[in-house]
Amino acid sequence: MAMTMTQKILAAHAGLDHVEAGQLIQANLDLVMANDITGPMALPIIQQMGGHVFNQDKVVFVPDHFTPNKDIKSAENSKAILEFSIQEKLTHKLIQGKCGVEHAILPELGLTYAGQCVIGADSHTCTYGALGAFSTGVGTTDIAAGMVTGQAWFKIPTAIKIYLHGKPNPYISGKDVILHIIGEIGVDGALYKSMEFVGPGVAELSMDDRFTICNMAIEAGAKNGIFPVDDQTIEYMKQAGVKDYTVYEADEDANYEQVVDVDLSQIRPTVAFPHLPGNAHTIDEVEAMEPIYVDQVVIGSCTNGRISDLRKAAAILKGHKVAENVRVMVVPATQKIFLQCVHEGLVDIFVEAGCAFNTPSCGPCMGGHMGVLAKGEKCLSTTNRNFVGRMGDVESLIYLASPEVAAATAIKGYIANPERMEEGK
Amino acid sequence: MAMTMTQKILAAHAGLDHVEAGQLIQANLDLVMANDITGPMALPIIQQMGGHVFNQDKVVFVPDHFTPNKDIKSAENSKAILEFSIQEKLTHKLIQGKCGVEHAILPELGLTYAGQCVIGADSHTCTYGALGAFSTGVGTTDIAAGMVTGQAWFKIPTAIKIYLHGKPNPYISGKDVILHIIGEIGVDGALYKSMEFVGPGVAELSMDDRFTICNMAIEAGAKNGIFPVDDQTIEYMKQAGVKDYTVYEADEDANYEQVVDVDLSQIRPTVAFPHLPGNAHTIDEVEAMEPIYVDQVVIGSCTNGRISDLRKAAAILKGHKVAENVRVMVVPATQKIFLQCVHEGLVDIFVEAGCAFNTPSCGPCMGGHMGVLAKGEKCLSTTNRNFVGRMGDVESLIYLASPEVAAATAIKGYIANPERMEEGK
Repeated sequence: MAMTMTQKILAAHAGLDHVEAGQLIQANLDLVMANDITGPMALPIIQQMGGHVFNQDKVVFVPDHFTPNKDIKSAENSKAILEFSIQEKLTHKLIQGKCGVEHAILPELGLTYAGQCVIGADSHTCTYGALGAFSTGVGTTDIAAGMVTGQAWFKIPTAIKIYLHGKPNPYISGKDVILHIIGEIGVDGALYKSMEFVGPGVAELSMDDRFTICNMAIEAGAKNGIFPVDDQTIEYMKQAGVKDYTVYEADEDANYEQVVDVDLSQIRPTVAFPHLPGNAHTIDEVEAMEPIYVDQVVIGSCTNGRISDLRKAAAILKGHKVAENVRVMVVPATQKIFLQCVHEGLVDIFVEAGCAFNTPSCGPCMGGHMGVLAKGEKCLSTTNRNFVGRMGDVESLIYLASPEVAAATAIKGYIANPERMEEGK
Repeated sequence: MAMTMTQKILAAHAGLDHVEAGQLIQANLDLVMANDITGPMALPIIQQMGGHVFNQDKVVFVPDHFTPNKDIKSAENSKAILEFSIQEKLTHKLIQGKCGVEHAILPELGLTYAGQCVIGADSHTCTYGALGAFSTGVGTTDIAAGMVTGQAWFKIPTAIKIYLHGKPNPYISGKDVILHIIGEIGVDGALYKSMEFVGPGVAELSMDDRFTICNMAIEAGAKNGIFPVDDQTIEYMKQAGVKDYTVYEADEDANYEQVVDVDLSQIRPTVAFPHLPGNAHTIDEVEAMEPIYVDQVVIGSCTNGRISDLRKAAAILKGHKVAENVRVMVVPATQKIFLQCVHEGLVDIFVEAGCAFNTPSCGPCMGGHMGVLAKGEKCLSTTNRNFVGRMGDVESLIYLASPEVAAATAIKGYIANPERMEEGK
């Protein structure tokens, strides 16, 4: 029987020729990741299970959520995962300040690639599907078991085919695409399903766009999001030093529960209003409303903190100034991306406009630190979730959008259409 | 009767021809500053006193301690001072992400200059003495009263003359000088006294060195630290756009309680061991001990986050890598200094070495955020205080030193002598 791309990867990792939706399998893992929140919780479980990892190359801890250490508790957590990484002689021992946000740094380091089966103790682990990997977020107990045994159980998911076609306008990027899709199918529209992105439109999306799209698959409830491997994927992996990868393709007659047709040429800049990523409005709808003034704009994160995201925001901000009372944080997702921003003159553009640079970190995204909101404050953010209180006070409001919309909003001080910005002075 | 430089400034601001030590005066204020910790505490007192500031040009709030907002409480505090600044139409309305650390941004903006009488609700307000101003830290009630009335009371301080002569070696900077002095006279060696820095050695110290030295006058208990105005001071003020200033000079026969002789040519790289800034050891003493390994190095702050500080650290780090398990944060004190670091290639040097850049902020200095220490961790920091628990856990240890020593320590992983570093690879 025919299989989806996801099913093929899972079958291969379970040592099976064939799997079908609903089947329970035990899969071998290629990478098991935890961060400075989930890692320290996993450590006592790992100790109960013998105290050692199954493979020093395939277990990695990323200190990114509360780093640079927010407080004593964060410092203890970072210390715990570093000490364990040293003790277990992990090949990839990441030190805060030298790496970046998990879902950007692992692909950058070539630790995630096509054909893998990856779990991470973070819900946005689905990001690596952009590379043609099966990749999903799990809880702390599963991550601990995965680190010790090298295996995890899965129920084989059904799938939704997202058929992409058409060419997006220059102000549209991956964020608009995924917010549009979640707006269409809802935040539980892909519950425990694979979102398999296919069609001629794939070629129109950069790798950074694909990371953004897969990153937010979980916001539609999906088990994973996944893109086919094409020349762009292969080039990306080559740049990251990946030597060995496996390309899986869905069977032509694979079974999809649903097909969602997305004409990229019709996608508009899209904003998810509080308090759900699926609460999507086009910028045209926003422009027809009273202006939505904001206190803060965040450009970055595992969703939109990659170099092409920052290039797009900078192109709009160039020569402009940030609105008078608005604070703007730019958060490059890794140290390498930060350095690219320096070399390409993007830091000049952002800082001269009045933006601050945050140390690569999850920072304000989940209300952690470096940009938390007060009561009643509004924030336009390129991050991935706008749940009640996620970035601070329960009475604060988060609007999700692309880096382009974020840049336009930073200039105007209210949620604005990037298509209408002209180069400043 | 003859007066010291400080006494002359205070007399002029009290409308008196003459003052003497111990006298109580009411002085007119040229600048009254609070930050995002002390400002919000002052606001209710200001309300009780009528709710308005005495002069919109002379009151300023700097959001720097817990910004980018660390948590909801910080966000509320930042919001409160911004709202008050807007409501009172303050001329200098500082927005987080667009400014920097109080004691660096105010001189940079030309708001502090020679001849002023300045109070700030922060103990390191004594920094502006580098410009030939009287400047001191006060509590929240005094700052509120100062903001409303434009006046503050002072007891005229006695003074210590710090006679500087000789030429320092190239690895010595302001931090070594002040740590040496505090080591000599003790952390209460200048209690409620002025430290007046004079002599031919003044010309050997850059403005940034002088800011560092005056910044730490409070660490010897001083009411203020002050330097004479020379060509360097005038050039600095010109660059900062200061148009109008007044030069005061101590009378030749002014009375000093004590004279401390400092031969700059004999100063060695100096490290203050836990838990007092006066617990000074020369680097030669340190080298004779067992290596003191560190977990973290901080280069920056209101003490040592100015451009020449960062240039010196970068010159040592150039071509080197940070020690394996050590995390290093560079914290430029203002957005302008950050941009200078970009333009001068310092960011490249630091990041390629493995350092992170923090957003300009007080950050880890007082254990606020962005670099807090876990139990048992050791940190070599260019900040100004190493009290028990100041940067985190009460069982963490802080060693204070210059940017040069910090850079050498970052490379070696233990407290190291910058004189022994060679350019890497």
